[in-house]
Amino acid sequence: MTCVLCTEHHPQELWRDSTLYVIDAADENLPGFIRVVMNRHVAEMSDLTDAERVHLWTVLNVVEKVMRETMSPDKVNLAEFGNMVPHVHWHIIARYRDDAFFPEAVWAPKVRTEVSEKMADRRAAAERMKTDLVAALTAL
Amino acid sequence: MTCVLCTEHHPQELWRDSTLYVIDAADENLPGFIRVVMNRHVAEMSDLTDAERVHLWTVLNVVEKVMRETMSPDKVNLAEFGNMVPHVHWHIIARYRDDAFFPEAVWAPKVRTEVSEKMADRRAAAERMKTDLVAALTAL
Repeated sequence: MTCVLCTEHHPQELWRDSTLYVIDAADENLPGFIRVVMNRHVAEMSDLTDAERVHLWTVLNVVEKVMRETMSPDKVNLAEFGNMVPHVHWHIIARYRDDAFFPEAVWAPKVRTEVSEKMADRRAAAERMKTDLVAALTAL
Repeated sequence: MTCVLCTEHHPQELWRDSTLYVIDAADENLPGFIRVVMNRHVAEMSDLTDAERVHLWTVLNVVEKVMRETMSPDKVNLAEFGNMVPHVHWHIIARYRDDAFFPEAVWAPKVRTEVSEKMADRRAAAERMKTDLVAALTAL
């Protein structure tokens, strides 16, 4: 079976280097949602080389910092599952006390249906985040 | 409000150093479940010092390796949320294709209720994991 993450150009791609790529994973509920995906088809973090893993951690830290600076989330959530697609990819999500799932994980059922009145501001902030993120990653 | 993770001795504690502690978070559905908790009350990964963060990643990698060696999971899941308790703590979970939630995240609703016939073996493997994990962390 072809792996959907084994691609040289993802439709939501924001940035890429020789080790990994970064995509915009925002949806209608979660305006600040970034995924970091390894280029190489590897299932587990401990299958990576030390250099790959250190680089990935560095990129995750940059994503979190830029997300916090531009979107001021109440909390950042980080997760690596790969149960459906066993190719290392990280979810980095800006969480707000009034988002659809808070305080539960975004993989749990929604706890509210009303959309925050701040959603438009958050979507605008997410655009700034993407611009700043590409700049910060390029400067690494 | 007192933080439940700000403690010098957690009831499920397996190991501790000057930076973090490791607890057994197994439950009836998930025999291989470890949490790694910072000693310091810090909300986000990017609030940690570089030295703390590098040490934490090193410990997470050791947990994942020992979990794979002893429990042979179909996938390891890693997550850091802190929406309810904003004190950096990581979930490291051994996932199996026949577990109660697979392929969903363990924060999603259960997808099956029957208990795997391999559960007794996995609980025994989890005991070996804990012993090996303490040894591996002590050797760091």
